[in-house]
Amino acid sequence: MLVNMLKAAKEATYELMSMRSDIKDRALSAVADKLDKNRELIKAENAKDIAYANECGLSKAMIDRLILDDKRIDAMIQAVNEIKAQTDPVGKVVEGYRRPNGLYITKVKVPLGVVGIIFESRPNVTIDAAALCLKSGNVSVLRGGKEAINSNVCLGKLMKEALKETGLPEAAVNIIEDTDRAVVMEMLRAKDYIDIMVPRGGDSLIKFCTEHSLIPLVKHDAGICHVFIDEFADMEMAVNIAVNAKCQRVGVCNTMETLLIHDAVAAKILPMLEKAYAEYSVELRGCENTQKIIACKPATEEDWSTEYLDFILSVKIVKSVDEAIAHINKYSSQHSDSIVTENYSNSEKFLDRVDSAAVYVNASTRWTDGGEFGLGAEIGISTQKLHCRGPMGADDLTTTKYRIYGSGQIR
Amino acid sequence: MLVNMLKAAKEATYELMSMRSDIKDRALSAVADKLDKNRELIKAENAKDIAYANECGLSKAMIDRLILDDKRIDAMIQAVNEIKAQTDPVGKVVEGYRRPNGLYITKVKVPLGVVGIIFESRPNVTIDAAALCLKSGNVSVLRGGKEAINSNVCLGKLMKEALKETGLPEAAVNIIEDTDRAVVMEMLRAKDYIDIMVPRGGDSLIKFCTEHSLIPLVKHDAGICHVFIDEFADMEMAVNIAVNAKCQRVGVCNTMETLLIHDAVAAKILPMLEKAYAEYSVELRGCENTQKIIACKPATEEDWSTEYLDFILSVKIVKSVDEAIAHINKYSSQHSDSIVTENYSNSEKFLDRVDSAAVYVNASTRWTDGGEFGLGAEIGISTQKLHCRGPMGADDLTTTKYRIYGSGQIR
Repeated sequence: MLVNMLKAAKEATYELMSMRSDIKDRALSAVADKLDKNRELIKAENAKDIAYANECGLSKAMIDRLILDDKRIDAMIQAVNEIKAQTDPVGKVVEGYRRPNGLYITKVKVPLGVVGIIFESRPNVTIDAAALCLKSGNVSVLRGGKEAINSNVCLGKLMKEALKETGLPEAAVNIIEDTDRAVVMEMLRAKDYIDIMVPRGGDSLIKFCTEHSLIPLVKHDAGICHVFIDEFADMEMAVNIAVNAKCQRVGVCNTMETLLIHDAVAAKILPMLEKAYAEYSVELRGCENTQKIIACKPATEEDWSTEYLDFILSVKIVKSVDEAIAHINKYSSQHSDSIVTENYSNSEKFLDRVDSAAVYVNASTRWTDGGEFGLGAEIGISTQKLHCRGPMGADDLTTTKYRIYGSGQIR
Repeated sequence: MLVNMLKAAKEATYELMSMRSDIKDRALSAVADKLDKNRELIKAENAKDIAYANECGLSKAMIDRLILDDKRIDAMIQAVNEIKAQTDPVGKVVEGYRRPNGLYITKVKVPLGVVGIIFESRPNVTIDAAALCLKSGNVSVLRGGKEAINSNVCLGKLMKEALKETGLPEAAVNIIEDTDRAVVMEMLRAKDYIDIMVPRGGDSLIKFCTEHSLIPLVKHDAGICHVFIDEFADMEMAVNIAVNAKCQRVGVCNTMETLLIHDAVAAKILPMLEKAYAEYSVELRGCENTQKIIACKPATEEDWSTEYLDFILSVKIVKSVDEAIAHINKYSSQHSDSIVTENYSNSEKFLDRVDSAAVYVNASTRWTDGGEFGLGAEIGISTQKLHCRGPMGADDLTTTKYRIYGSGQIR
C-alpha cells in the first residue's frame, strides 16, 4: 500500500530534519560502499531489465540509457562521494537580526520533508536523487520507469541496508515498485504526506502532473535552447559554439534546437555552418531568408517550438539583437540561451532581457548541468521560476524556518 | 477581455525586468503622492462599497475591514514609503564563481514576471501588493473581492496615473474589474501569461486554487497556531503569552487556536488562565484532563484542527515536550507555534522539531507578520514550503537567473 509507505516516510522526516551532518555523511559512505561491494548483484538485476527491454524491442539509445556496467557503477559511487563532500545546506542561517522589541529572529535552512520524484529509464537517477535528498535531510520517494524496475529495486535495497547499518531510518529512502501509471496519480494527490513533487520526463508526464497535482511541483521540462550569432560575433567561435551546442549530444535538454543569426553576417557564416553541420548529418530547416543562402528544408511555425532531441536544427535570420531576444522570449522553454558577440552592450542586453534560467555570452548551452556548475550532482534542471531555477542540487532541496528567541514578548 | 490584459502584462515584464531601482522608486513616490492628493476621491469611491455592504447586510467586522478613512489612507501611504525605502532585491548576486574551464558563473536575483493575486475584502491589500510587486520589478494582476470593487478600481487608476507620469508602462499594475468567480478559473489556467499565483483567503478559495491551478501557487492558508506551556515555564510569562496569543486580535491567522499545557503544571496554571480568559469571555474547550481541573466544554477531535478565528480556545494537557511536538506536527497548519519554557534543551528541541514556518521560544505567535519581522509590508504569509515560507516580502517575489560569461567554451 502506497499510503503506508508514505506515512512511514512522513514520520521519518521528523528524525531526519535535525539529523547531524556527520551521521548523514556516514550513511552516504555506506551507500558508496554497498554499491562497490555488490557490483555483481547490481549487474545481474540490471541484466533482467536489459533482457526485457530487448524483448520489448526498445531502441538501442533507450537500452544504452538503462545499462549499469562497471563504469556506470563507478560513476554512481563517485556521485555519492561528491554529494557527501558538499557542505550540508541544512542549518545555514540565511538571515538573523534582533528586532527593536528584543526578539531575536533567525531564518534558517531546513529540509523540505518528503520529496517525491518521478523519472524515466536511467537507473543512476535513483542513486543521485536519493543521495541528494539524504544529504539535505529529506526523505525520498522514488518512482522510476518500468523498464528499469529490477535495477531500481536492487539499488533501493542496498541503500536501505546502508541506512540501517548506520542507524538511520530505513524509511528515509523509498522505491515504489508498482510501475502502474495510477500510482503517479496517487502520489500527486497525497498532499498530507509529500511536500514537493519533482517530475522529470517528457511533455505528457509534465502536463499530467501539472493538471492533477495537489502538491507543489518543481518541473523539469523540455529544453528549447537557442544560440544567437550576433553581427559582432567572432565567426570561428560562433561556428564552434553552434556546432557544439547542437551536436555534442543531441538527446538532452540543454542542446540547441534553434539557431538565430544576425542578418549582417548570415551570408558569410551560413555556408561555414552548412559545411560543419554536414559532418554530423544535421538536417537544417531554415526561414525564408536562410533558404536563399543555403540549401535547406523550410522551417514552419511549429519548428520554432519543437524540441527535436535529434540531429535537426531550425535556423532563423533576424535583423537585430532585439528581434533575437523577442524570438527567444516567445519560443524558448526558458532553459538555456546563448549569444555569441564581441559587442559589450549587446551581451549585457541579452543577459538582462532573455527570461531564461541560464543565459550565456560566448559559450555553448551544453554547460547547463549541475556537475558542470559545480553543484556535485543534480536532481534535475528546473524550468520554472518558483523555488529554484536551473540545475537543482542539495541546496535547492531546502526551505527556511524562522527560529525566534524571545524573552516574554507580547503584542 | 482578461487575455488582452494578461498579454499586455506579460509584455510589460520585459521592460520592468531590468528597470533601474531609482525609476521604480520614483514611481512609488508618485503612488504615495497620488494617494495623498486624492483622499476625497478614494473616500467617495469607498463609500459606494460601504453602502453596498450595508445593503447586503455584511457583518460589522467585515464592513470595518472595508473602510478607507484618513487613518487607513495614511497607513497605505506609509506602507508605500516603507517599501520604497527597502533595498531593491533585483540584481543581487546570490553566488558567483569561476569554473576551472574559465566560465564565470553568477546567480542573480530577477523578478518572477507576472504575479497574480487573489484576495478578499481589505482594499489596502491592493496598494501593498502592487507596491511590493513594483519594487521587485514584477507586474501585478490583482483580483480583489466584489465587496471592495469600487475602492480597488479607484486605487488601481491612481497607480496607473502614477506609472504613466513617471514613464513606466501602465500595464505594470492591473486590476481585474470582473468579480465573477469564473475569472479566478481563467487566471489559474493562464499559464502562458502568469508566472505565479498568490491566493489569499479562506479554505474554499485555497482548495479551489490547488485543484485547478496550472500555475505555481504560493498559498496563504489557515493558521492553526499553538502555544505549549512547558513544565519549566515561568508561570506569569506563560499566562501573558497565552492570553496575548489568543485575545489581542482573534480574527487573524497568527492567533493561537490550541493551548498545550504540561501535565506537571496544569493544576497550577489552568485556574490562572481560566480567570484571565474570563475577562475576554473566551470559551474554553478542554481535553478530559483539563475538564478535571477547570470548568469547560469538552474538546472533540475536530477541535484540534479547527481555526476558530473567534474567542474560542481548545486546551490539551500533554505529558512531555515530545507529545506537544507530535500534537503540533499532526494538527498545526505549519504557520506559527511557540513554547514557553526556561529549559534550554526543551527550547532547542521544540525549535528543531516543530515543522512550522515560524517557531518561537517565550513569545506570542502574534508576532508573525511582515511588518513586525522588519520586511516592510507583506504580500501574505506563506504556509507552504516551496519558494518561500512565512511572511512574504519583496525579496520573495524574485527568482534567480544564471548569468554566464564565457570566452568560447565548448563541451
